[in-house]
Amino acid sequence: MAKDTYLVGLIGAGIGPSLSPALHEREADRQGLRYLYRLIDIDVLGGRPEAVGDLLRAARDLGFDGLNITHPCKQLVIEHLDELSPQAEALGAVNTVVFDDGRAVGHNTDVTGFAASFARGLPDAPLEKVVQVGAGGAGAAVAHATLTLGAGHVTVVDAMPDRAADLAVALNRHFGVGRAAAATLDMLPALLAEADGVVHATPTGMAAHPGLPFGAELLRPGLWVAEVVYRPLETELLRTARAVGCAVLDGGGMAVFQAVDAFRLFTGREPDAAAMLADIAELAGVVGVRN
Amino acid sequence: MAKDTYLVGLIGAGIGPSLSPALHEREADRQGLRYLYRLIDIDVLGGRPEAVGDLLRAARDLGFDGLNITHPCKQLVIEHLDELSPQAEALGAVNTVVFDDGRAVGHNTDVTGFAASFARGLPDAPLEKVVQVGAGGAGAAVAHATLTLGAGHVTVVDAMPDRAADLAVALNRHFGVGRAAAATLDMLPALLAEADGVVHATPTGMAAHPGLPFGAELLRPGLWVAEVVYRPLETELLRTARAVGCAVLDGGGMAVFQAVDAFRLFTGREPDAAAMLADIAELAGVVGVRN
Repeated sequence: MAKDTYLVGLIGAGIGPSLSPALHEREADRQGLRYLYRLIDIDVLGGRPEAVGDLLRAARDLGFDGLNITHPCKQLVIEHLDELSPQAEALGAVNTVVFDDGRAVGHNTDVTGFAASFARGLPDAPLEKVVQVGAGGAGAAVAHATLTLGAGHVTVVDAMPDRAADLAVALNRHFGVGRAAAATLDMLPALLAEADGVVHATPTGMAAHPGLPFGAELLRPGLWVAEVVYRPLETELLRTARAVGCAVLDGGGMAVFQAVDAFRLFTGREPDAAAMLADIAELAGVVGVRN
Repeated sequence: MAKDTYLVGLIGAGIGPSLSPALHEREADRQGLRYLYRLIDIDVLGGRPEAVGDLLRAARDLGFDGLNITHPCKQLVIEHLDELSPQAEALGAVNTVVFDDGRAVGHNTDVTGFAASFARGLPDAPLEKVVQVGAGGAGAAVAHATLTLGAGHVTVVDAMPDRAADLAVALNRHFGVGRAAAATLDMLPALLAEADGVVHATPTGMAAHPGLPFGAELLRPGLWVAEVVYRPLETELLRTARAVGCAVLDGGGMAVFQAVDAFRLFTGREPDAAAMLADIAELAGVVGVRN
């Protein structure tokens, strides 16, 4: 059999609406590859998140070339892997596993994907003082990305103060003392008044969580706003920030570049990122809405 | 995701050289389907044949649409299935499993495949007295097919007399007393002298088992010869029989029609059997060698 066939999948809970199968398969079609991307939904299977180890071994045995991993398995999967990339090790979270000759190697393309999206979408954004809202899994990944891109200081804010504090400790351990701090939500007005930009990394703005993550009055021209949510691509936060005059970055770039990086890891081939960005705009259903 | 994507595979031991992936994937390409056929080789995995149950459940969980099953798992898989087709139940062997809404349904397309190949390749062959050499798994399947096609009587011969006797008992139980009998190898001259045709169902004639399954002097014009071996398509038996003037049927038809029937079960779509026959001639490497 010619080795231009690829079988990959996504393990997670509640992943039915994922755009990853379409994103990967469209790009594979452009490259003329036989490529199948399957959803392995723990909710549908009636399993526990801890089942990720068994599913991983089963996927290796059944001829999968690799897997994406998402909530709630990004940490749980680690003990079942043979090796970690530096980003995955630093973050303590894996969203991509590549099977290589029976070995399972973990990567984190959320980190590299956000970094690539930011570098492309806000190339000249000042990074001296960054505020990040949200310290969950996505928040940890994008904070790592922002500091890797050279941010001077990141202040992490979360509705759960312990989670923000834990992330700040981890960031300082990895990037050097003084690069990160935690703060509470009530400090956002003062923090944003002094910040170069804000990264939003909570679910607010998705269909199930409408609204703004903080008061619109905190936005001002000169503050850049980077969004992690990508469904819809144009969240209320981005619409409001754009109206105020902020430079903005939507979450589609991170979603695409994490897929770009995963596709490259799975196949060793360079994806067409521009075509995949066009795909996500169409797939996320915003064609004709955005402008 | 559009449901014109299919993930299937083959579970068995030592299946590396299988032509099934190419046969299925070429037909799927003609039909414009996204279709991946993976080999799940128990030898490569270092597992036991009894692992077929775990592999079956794993395949269902990971989004496989169905599986082919081959040696040594065709019987072992049965206890793990929810339902059997009439042929599979009668034979006590399954070579195709279809996952339907979480249920695993077993079929046997070796039986239907040989029957289709015979009906196509030797449509006018007399079937009053048939001799079959080989009473293993393939032998059981083709004996069921021959009797289903209307053979009056089948005498089964095998180097292991118990195996031939057991098969004859099973055939009589299913098709009615007096339809089948067992005999020993030394009776072949007398049996073939009176037979309409002979079905060969041992591995003799494959590269690893060269030679003839019985003496060439037993062949005569008027005796038809049907072969199960398909690598090579032109076995020494077929070459010899053709030279003698026998009507012959090579094993490629059975190999193709079991795949045709499996493809139809997996997808609900009608395969192009003629194109698949051309494929197997090319894939089995006999183009320019045969005739």
